[in-house]
Amino acid sequence: MAGNYCQTCGSVGKMNTQIVIMAGGIGSRLWPASTPEMPKQFIDLLGVGKSLIQLTADRFQQVCNPDRIWVVTSARYVKTVRKQLPYIPEDQILAEPVPRNTAPCIAYACWKIMRKYPDANVVVTPSDAIVMKQDRFTDVMKKALEFTAENDAIVTVGIKPDRPETGYGYICSSGTEEGKVLKVKAFKEKPCLETAKGYITEGNYFWNAGIFVWKVSTIVSQMREFAPQIAGMMDRMAKSFGREDEQAMLEELFPQCDKISIDYAVMEKSPSIYVIAADLAWSDLGSWSSTGMHINASEGGNRIVGGDVRLFGCEGCIVHAGEEKMVIIKDLKDYIVAEKNGRLLICPIADEQDIKEYSADKQS
Amino acid sequence: MAGNYCQTCGSVGKMNTQIVIMAGGIGSRLWPASTPEMPKQFIDLLGVGKSLIQLTADRFQQVCNPDRIWVVTSARYVKTVRKQLPYIPEDQILAEPVPRNTAPCIAYACWKIMRKYPDANVVVTPSDAIVMKQDRFTDVMKKALEFTAENDAIVTVGIKPDRPETGYGYICSSGTEEGKVLKVKAFKEKPCLETAKGYITEGNYFWNAGIFVWKVSTIVSQMREFAPQIAGMMDRMAKSFGREDEQAMLEELFPQCDKISIDYAVMEKSPSIYVIAADLAWSDLGSWSSTGMHINASEGGNRIVGGDVRLFGCEGCIVHAGEEKMVIIKDLKDYIVAEKNGRLLICPIADEQDIKEYSADKQS
Repeated sequence: MAGNYCQTCGSVGKMNTQIVIMAGGIGSRLWPASTPEMPKQFIDLLGVGKSLIQLTADRFQQVCNPDRIWVVTSARYVKTVRKQLPYIPEDQILAEPVPRNTAPCIAYACWKIMRKYPDANVVVTPSDAIVMKQDRFTDVMKKALEFTAENDAIVTVGIKPDRPETGYGYICSSGTEEGKVLKVKAFKEKPCLETAKGYITEGNYFWNAGIFVWKVSTIVSQMREFAPQIAGMMDRMAKSFGREDEQAMLEELFPQCDKISIDYAVMEKSPSIYVIAADLAWSDLGSWSSTGMHINASEGGNRIVGGDVRLFGCEGCIVHAGEEKMVIIKDLKDYIVAEKNGRLLICPIADEQDIKEYSADKQS
Repeated sequence: MAGNYCQTCGSVGKMNTQIVIMAGGIGSRLWPASTPEMPKQFIDLLGVGKSLIQLTADRFQQVCNPDRIWVVTSARYVKTVRKQLPYIPEDQILAEPVPRNTAPCIAYACWKIMRKYPDANVVVTPSDAIVMKQDRFTDVMKKALEFTAENDAIVTVGIKPDRPETGYGYICSSGTEEGKVLKVKAFKEKPCLETAKGYITEGNYFWNAGIFVWKVSTIVSQMREFAPQIAGMMDRMAKSFGREDEQAMLEELFPQCDKISIDYAVMEKSPSIYVIAADLAWSDLGSWSSTGMHINASEGGNRIVGGDVRLFGCEGCIVHAGEEKMVIIKDLKDYIVAEKNGRLLICPIADEQDIKEYSADKQS
């Protein structure tokens, strides 16, 4: 079936490919670049001229037409999504009334897609990760979509680890080969360093990129089986889709959905989960240090986003100051310096896990 | 004559007291709080709710009415002066076409005063120093004005040093007693540390606060004697004062004045220079460290100007971020962190002498 793509939209065969971008997160570990007013997926975190959600949408250019993209986000970010992704049909921008973790988010999108395109073959992706190896990503997506088109299966994407990272979840697969559809044996939570080192040695453990591929019919039936509470809410909501009371029903029922991740709700229970492992030069950009890895190093190993940044005697720093006119820093080593919109952070990279706490609203 | 003050304006006797505030400086060592667009004399450097020039003007409240204040500044700062000192008559805000150091600046003000008030008794003061002991300052000013009213003399103010500061000039006087009018033996440039220590031991050396008191007739005649080039230019300019061509003459002649300080031009040559020494808790706020000394220390000896500044593991830092909504700093010791108007500085206090160079416009 390889190569059997639509010449217009790049979809595989007669497949009806739809992309769901999850864009409701806050990104509090990347404060102050990322704030609840404008979280990381909507900002040009790497200084490349595009926001992360724009880069995410672009990444599917060879997979399907951009008007097949759906975005699930908070109501407060709908305007931002429209502005940054103007080519997305308005009815494909879905606003969660409240955040209820990924299972209700994904269910909402898939129930909406099912009504419009019951034969859809769907990719669900986070909005805030980056992939440097675009061609390989396209290949993986096409391979996954081909597989789910022909099987009632869920395909995930595993990233070949290049270090014993303790900040990611891992997928334990039945094999070590990249680029093949492998059976998933287990999902593993973020490990300790020793465990992570063991995973690397084993060779059949991959980082979980949080990307899921399935037919809409597959995920709906699996949610009915493994997450019946959420599926029940969605079935009730779906009756109002297109009616005047749609928004009212959404606001009434969505907040009642179990607050649970898709991993817990379905992935760890379903028997038909597969993974395609690949070296995509992927990063979730979940922290300043992981972001820094994707900013080209200048002299002294400093990673700079911003115009007139002048470092003297600095080494290994991440400086993110896109809005500043001039930044002068003397004698800092392995620090994060980030400024945005009147908020300034100066923190050793080693302490970045505390940023969320430091920047939290003060309790009186 | 003590106590013989006007009940309305506080001037001594029938004395016609006028105050000249020199406000043309740039304050480049306090970048980025101080910039050429808005130098330090016009900003609330200490976070007290008033700019340094406002504090300077306030300091003379017990010496004379505020409408007796004159300001010499650059043309670009005239609007700022009007806004910050709205009670000053417009014709007492003088705009230098170009900076030519203090001698032409002072001469311009004094020639203008001479025309309006030929009997004036004048205090010339920088705009950017602070004095914490207000009452003692008032006493010193009154004593100096009394002395110059009765003598064709120049009185300077000497600050009793509390440390062998190498950043100030010193006045060598004929005695050690504070609060008395003493003869000046010599003006000394900024000394090395060893020399400064010697000055402290001697006891008759005082910091030169750059404040001068004289009758306008005294300084005009002394400038005619010791700085005839400048005096000649002023005499030519003065013919146009109040005429239509005043501004044109100013722009033609002022830039031709010798670029020289009042210290070189007059102080070091005149035989009739006196000093009143006093402990005024004075500082010229010429650098971040000297500014920091006048900001109350919080936990860890940190000096903070700004709203929501959160320090974790920081010691001895100066944080000046009045415009920032939130500042978070972890593990810095003895650093300056200053942000203003899109310009950020992070620099060890020990390296503050380099700030001017770091922040200079890049040469291509």
